Amino acid sequence: VIFKNMTWTGYLFDPLTDERYPLDEPRWRSDSGGVLSLAIPGFWNPDDLGHREHSMWRYRESLPIQDEQNILTMGEGFTPLLTWNRRGKKIWIKQEHLFPTGSYKDRGAAVLISKVKELGIRQVVQDSSGNAGCAIAAYCGRAGIACDIYVPADTSPAKLMQIRSYGARMHLIPGSREDTAAAALDAARKKYYASHCWNPFFLHGTKTFAYEIWEQLGQRGPDALVLPVGNGTLLLGAYIGFTDLIQRGLIDKLPKLIGVQSGHCAPLATAFQQHATQPALIEKLPTLAEGIAIATPVRGAEILAAVRDSGGYFITVDETEILSTHRALALQGFYVELTAAAAIAGLDHYLELVVETETIVSVFTGHGLKSACEH
Amino acid sequence: VIFKNMTWTGYLFDPLTDERYPLDEPRWRSDSGGVLSLAIPGFWNPDDLGHREHSMWRYRESLPIQDEQNILTMGEGFTPLLTWNRRGKKIWIKQEHLFPTGSYKDRGAAVLISKVKELGIRQVVQDSSGNAGCAIAAYCGRAGIACDIYVPADTSPAKLMQIRSYGARMHLIPGSREDTAAAALDAARKKYYASHCWNPFFLHGTKTFAYEIWEQLGQRGPDALVLPVGNGTLLLGAYIGFTDLIQRGLIDKLPKLIGVQSGHCAPLATAFQQHATQPALIEKLPTLAEGIAIATPVRGAEILAAVRDSGGYFITVDETEILSTHRALALQGFYVELTAAAAIAGLDHYLELVVETETIVSVFTGHGLKSACEH
Repeated sequence: VIFKNMTWTGYLFDPLTDERYPLDEPRWRSDSGGVLSLAIPGFWNPDDLGHREHSMWRYRESLPIQDEQNILTMGEGFTPLLTWNRRGKKIWIKQEHLFPTGSYKDRGAAVLISKVKELGIRQVVQDSSGNAGCAIAAYCGRAGIACDIYVPADTSPAKLMQIRSYGARMHLIPGSREDTAAAALDAARKKYYASHCWNPFFLHGTKTFAYEIWEQLGQRGPDALVLPVGNGTLLLGAYIGFTDLIQRGLIDKLPKLIGVQSGHCAPLATAFQQHATQPALIEKLPTLAEGIAIATPVRGAEILAAVRDSGGYFITVDETEILSTHRALALQGFYVELTAAAAIAGLDHYLELVVETETIVSVFTGHGLKSACEH
Repeated sequence: VIFKNMTWTGYLFDPLTDERYPLDEPRWRSDSGGVLSLAIPGFWNPDDLGHREHSMWRYRESLPIQDEQNILTMGEGFTPLLTWNRRGKKIWIKQEHLFPTGSYKDRGAAVLISKVKELGIRQVVQDSSGNAGCAIAAYCGRAGIACDIYVPADTSPAKLMQIRSYGARMHLIPGSREDTAAAALDAARKKYYASHCWNPFFLHGTKTFAYEIWEQLGQRGPDALVLPVGNGTLLLGAYIGFTDLIQRGLIDKLPKLIGVQSGHCAPLATAFQQHATQPALIEKLPTLAEGIAIATPVRGAEILAAVRDSGGYFITVDETEILSTHRALALQGFYVELTAAAAIAGLDHYLELVVETETIVSVFTGHGLKSACEH
């Protein structure tokens, strides 16, 4: 951790209505019920990075925690960026499954729960398809903050056991992922909603994904970023991070954001195809990619706008591809969860389309051990 | 990876008989049946590290792979060294559970299987209590090398599934860990024995653990290292690495090596107590710490000599402590496997004994998701 207190004051705002709120208010949506964004005036100086520890906290000046004593860390971040020869092309894989809780969600949870601690909040609620629940529960464990995690009853057993181990109170909700979200929203009337979907502090953790890629590629940005999208917490974080890098003159264009969805649950891919600005109403079918099986993403409009702004698009993958890619990856030594394999199946589609010279980065989002008890 | 071919030639030798063998011979023990050591003339230059990638391959000049094209890597190494306040003392934890296969064994497997590839070997056998099997199988998957992994029939289901996923042929052996070793030794008459216990290339991967700690502490060594010990692959690697650092003038004394064993299987702790130079013959009882439940460690004499040379000693922990430490760690956000918790239970004993000013490093050896299907 870069031990340093921040003197700047950012603010929360609703981009649709321009309502503004101070950072020291325990709030997760605007008065008009909209999703909030976060403005932070600080930014790290590239010249300072050389001697800092290799964790996401090396970008200290961009992270919305004012008092360094509130920082909860397990040394997370700076995951390996692997050079990989895929379908005859040299590409890069950011190995985000190598986080303490086994998924990239630790980036968001470390920042969000540190902020929760800074706000003096002692209990939170959250809902998740599994990995975000693990991450929130772990960092609440670090801080001694009570948490109630709502998950669909059919979540992977390894994830349920992990959430419970951290001491979280777990609520198994029958029905759809949307029923789970509704149950958590209801509970959030009484406790702070530490939601990875609603809460902007989460995205200001995942944005460090972009900064790290920039450093690891040798202070440059990729041409394209192929990412799995459910609630879009990684894609939106990447968008914030790369936009920062443009504004600071460190890169000159956004990477194309290529979102991968399961064909069985593709509200954003469908909306993109239809030139719509809101997620499409879809009938969700069961999918192996449980981590991105989100029919009504809270920040759907924001995701669609980010992908369009970047010149990117969406790719859908089918169940057979997810399964065969998952198996093929393991046979090559890469043990990732099924949702992560969905992204690589999408990457393979993308690689069929692109020119040789693009710098392409994709990601392993969750560890294979996450689905350990299932096959 | 530091793309660089090495021109030095090291050699294998039996320290008991002084027999020497060239490095390019597919051999895993001496003609007289002894365990081999490895002499490598090369060493990395501290001044070169600044601009190298943060993986264990930054120590390229010390790793026994001659042709860089044979290096198999998933970007492993440089795991986070976490500052931790434990029992009122500031200590450090090297988070070795954050490797691609979920344990520190990847250090050894990456080097050993790269060497296997360099030797042109196309099939290997290995035996393991689980984690080493996962690591060997994964890197064989990277290389397309066929492997047969022998494991005790009662190994954790998550580890068995993981080994199988990598495409390894898995052999479940009824009876003890020693029966498993005997079955693998028998198979090793026809195929190369990629054993983490016998094969010295493995230890020349785990030695990078020491180099990384030296860098992460700010180019100095710890006063004490508290490590779990079964076959001693981490402890012996650390001993090699810190001995290198002394020989190069980068530190001036060895850290005390404090070995932690389960009281239910403590051949080395018992021998140490008895001032013996060979592991004690013990009756092994079932233990939660499956990863260190080794009654007859192949390199037992070497481990005892290393611990004595360092001024260290052994600590044993009981089953109740292992379980309660495991639970308490998870409640604090640290999700590790039971064997890893055994080491921290031992660390707690050590912390009761030592003076305030010591720099103490311990380790999380394996991920909690490794025992995901069991509780």
